[in-house]
Amino acid sequence: MSDEAAFIAALRAIIRDPGARGLMDDAAVIAPPLGRELVVTHDMIAENIHFLPDDPPGDVAWKLLAVNLSDLAAKGARPRGVILGYTLSSPAWDQAFVTGLGRALEHFDVPLLGGDTIAAPARILGLTAFGEAEAPVPDRRHAKAGDSLWVAGTIGDAGLGLRIARGEISGPRRLLKAYRLPMPRLATGQAVARHVAAMADVSDGLLIDAARMAEASGLRITIDLPAVPLSPEAITVAGESREARIAACVAGDDYALIFASAASPEEVGRWAPDAVRVGAFDTGQGLLLRDKAEFIPLPPRLGWLHNN
Amino acid sequence: MSDEAAFIAALRAIIRDPGARGLMDDAAVIAPPLGRELVVTHDMIAENIHFLPDDPPGDVAWKLLAVNLSDLAAKGARPRGVILGYTLSSPAWDQAFVTGLGRALEHFDVPLLGGDTIAAPARILGLTAFGEAEAPVPDRRHAKAGDSLWVAGTIGDAGLGLRIARGEISGPRRLLKAYRLPMPRLATGQAVARHVAAMADVSDGLLIDAARMAEASGLRITIDLPAVPLSPEAITVAGESREARIAACVAGDDYALIFASAASPEEVGRWAPDAVRVGAFDTGQGLLLRDKAEFIPLPPRLGWLHNN
Repeated sequence: MSDEAAFIAALRAIIRDPGARGLMDDAAVIAPPLGRELVVTHDMIAENIHFLPDDPPGDVAWKLLAVNLSDLAAKGARPRGVILGYTLSSPAWDQAFVTGLGRALEHFDVPLLGGDTIAAPARILGLTAFGEAEAPVPDRRHAKAGDSLWVAGTIGDAGLGLRIARGEISGPRRLLKAYRLPMPRLATGQAVARHVAAMADVSDGLLIDAARMAEASGLRITIDLPAVPLSPEAITVAGESREARIAACVAGDDYALIFASAASPEEVGRWAPDAVRVGAFDTGQGLLLRDKAEFIPLPPRLGWLHNN
Repeated sequence: MSDEAAFIAALRAIIRDPGARGLMDDAAVIAPPLGRELVVTHDMIAENIHFLPDDPPGDVAWKLLAVNLSDLAAKGARPRGVILGYTLSSPAWDQAFVTGLGRALEHFDVPLLGGDTIAAPARILGLTAFGEAEAPVPDRRHAKAGDSLWVAGTIGDAGLGLRIARGEISGPRRLLKAYRLPMPRLATGQAVARHVAAMADVSDGLLIDAARMAEASGLRITIDLPAVPLSPEAITVAGESREARIAACVAGDDYALIFASAASPEEVGRWAPDAVRVGAFDTGQGLLLRDKAEFIPLPPRLGWLHNN
């Protein structure tokens, strides 16, 4: 392909929303939901930084969509459409990307509305996703002193999956899949958003994303390392030593959801059955890490920077 | 700067809309206008393709915003907000970019709502712009046989400005400015949108953008070369020979508006005083170029491909 007209023709085969105007217009049109807010997010991914040159292009398409939908999930929003920013590369890569994107859009039932395609010296892909808010939109700045920090989803799987993809370790396919084909927790986000004021997704790492929520809310956060949920596969591959848990907490790409709530475990369990309590907010600032009764030093790196 | 946290801190200084959530959340929130459609566009610009390494970073910021607002202008939409996709580079470049972006946003009275910042091997910048439709949204696919093609704005200035920027020719500052600081025709677009079914902006070149409107509408377009509006400065620098006019028509980056209308010149003059009639749509397909009574061969390249 590698030619803009051919690429757009391939994209046309996967569009279905009239707001996309057949990809023949300058812009897309959204009829916004009456009386509901629109949530908008934009994430970019770059080759060699957010994905590897050998990653299958269809998986890259999935990941680009999934990381953006995860931001919508963190706001409890229902995906309404996406806009693609695409750098042309080789015909085979471009075609495989479009095929994968079509499949991913269909999986999440979200239409492609438009975008831009350019020739460029590097593979840097961007996506803007729009969602309809189902409830007041949770805000990372609104955790309160006394709230617990909850995590829905396991932590560290994608970090191990990246090491498998790089050939550094071997491990089960589910971990590789967590890295290549992350799953935005849309249903959980929509269910939780009705009950909490602060929610975010874990894209750069549990420690850094929790610290950001605390900082944005003007609070201190204490994380209980033994409470951090690890998958059975991650435990099999890396164990559950203090070091393994810390590695999981700074690896990023989890797309678990974190939220702040003072509700009881029973109540949280009603709207987020798989959420576990991993920490607590209180007055002050900064991040504390606790392993049982002992406060332990923070790792030199809390998570990915320059990441999604 | 060159550091994500420092860059975002600099961006925070230029935000003012509460929907941006202080750039501390995963996503932005837009309260959509009641009963109005939302127009969305995304354009990317890459160094060495859409701008030059020596272009002042503040001008690059202006251009990134302007090319997107021009798409909104072509849909008659009022800008409501933008989302930035940014690749970090050097501290000085990044700071100058933010300063210029702030100034450009203020000029057009449009707020920054959010975005994403990544480390990347190349400078590739993306912007998503949202606008509120003021009227039924014109569509490039809706020209009708018998409509005239009108142009609001002059053609070819930016092409000459690019040659000045490259040091190939000398010429007045206004032409360089047309290339570096293009001006989206928002007021014209809003005035025209109430009266026409098909409108687009001239980003890749008058010939190719007119041909695209004809193709999208299933029609043939004939362009009258002598009618194409050239600025006095362009005529001074390049003359108005057939060759100079053709060069102007394929240069791109004009951000003039083109629209299809069967209205009389008097009527068009009421809502678009500077629009001139440059061609006509009829049944058939393809692009014809006419110089007075003579049909002339099309140039090998109708405009920029892989462009905005």
